[in-house]
Amino acid sequence: MSRMLTPEPLTQAAFAPFGDVIETEGAEARRINAGFATRFHDLTRIDVGREGGRPILSIFEARPRPTPLVVPLLERHPLGSQSFFPLESRAWLAVVAPDADGAPDLDAARCFRARGDQGLTYAPGAWHAPLLVTGAGPQRFLVVDRLGALADLSDNLEEAPLAGESVLTLAV
Amino acid sequence: MSRMLTPEPLTQAAFAPFGDVIETEGAEARRINAGFATRFHDLTRIDVGREGGRPILSIFEARPRPTPLVVPLLERHPLGSQSFFPLESRAWLAVVAPDADGAPDLDAARCFRARGDQGLTYAPGAWHAPLLVTGAGPQRFLVVDRLGALADLSDNLEEAPLAGESVLTLAV
Repeated sequence: MSRMLTPEPLTQAAFAPFGDVIETEGAEARRINAGFATRFHDLTRIDVGREGGRPILSIFEARPRPTPLVVPLLERHPLGSQSFFPLESRAWLAVVAPDADGAPDLDAARCFRARGDQGLTYAPGAWHAPLLVTGAGPQRFLVVDRLGALADLSDNLEEAPLAGESVLTLAV
Repeated sequence: MSRMLTPEPLTQAAFAPFGDVIETEGAEARRINAGFATRFHDLTRIDVGREGGRPILSIFEARPRPTPLVVPLLERHPLGSQSFFPLESRAWLAVVAPDADGAPDLDAARCFRARGDQGLTYAPGAWHAPLLVTGAGPQRFLVVDRLGALADLSDNLEEAPLAGESVLTLAV
């Protein structure tokens, strides 16, 4: 019997156990450029310095998945945070689960629906699904994460495949 | 007599003396998420660690300036890079100048027109104008820059006001 997750709104309070929401709402707003711009300042915790890591900036282009949307695996990055912000302003989905003795606790998994003007940061070690995009076409994300000793990033990746009874299906 | 700058296309080669262009074109493309996404990997040099600095992520919302567009000042950040990527996919303008003995060399100033799918990184110490947005409404940018000892960022800012003969006007 697989688990069915119903998306809930993405809010700082609800997402706090897994990381940060990146949004201007509630942020420190600084007037800069003689009033021609506002700086919404320091919106998330970038934590990528462990074991010689450094921040890198990439663009992920995600392609829509078929529905009903089945989460194929959860993954986590033990040595660094990973921040996502959508470049196409459309809603998107994030699935997370708390850790239980080194594996995701699927009974406590949650699905968040992010607005098109919301990004998020997965904290180091937070179990999460790969990018889950539905809809008409690709959606790009600006991503800030960690580069360490290994160019393929494999020193900072753990995967938990889901199959059979452990499958997560999204009610979207 | 003020200087008039004509925008030129933003390319990696032309912008190299001042920093990097952030774009997927020509980038290393990695297949991830079982083929459901492409990672355009490590698109710019984030250089924010000097003197105890750390990377922060912010959103700048820039409001349109009146035309003809007059550049009020150039600024630079000696201790850290500053990366911008537009969240509204519209063309935008960047003005830069090489340094000459601690001041911008205005005779060598250049104006670049970035496409809506191009960001850029100003290298540490590169003289540049504040965000220059024209058009119908505000344009937001995701920004990665440096936070050091001072919360107001004043330890990493030099400004060169432009007035009279030193004014830069853009042919837009």
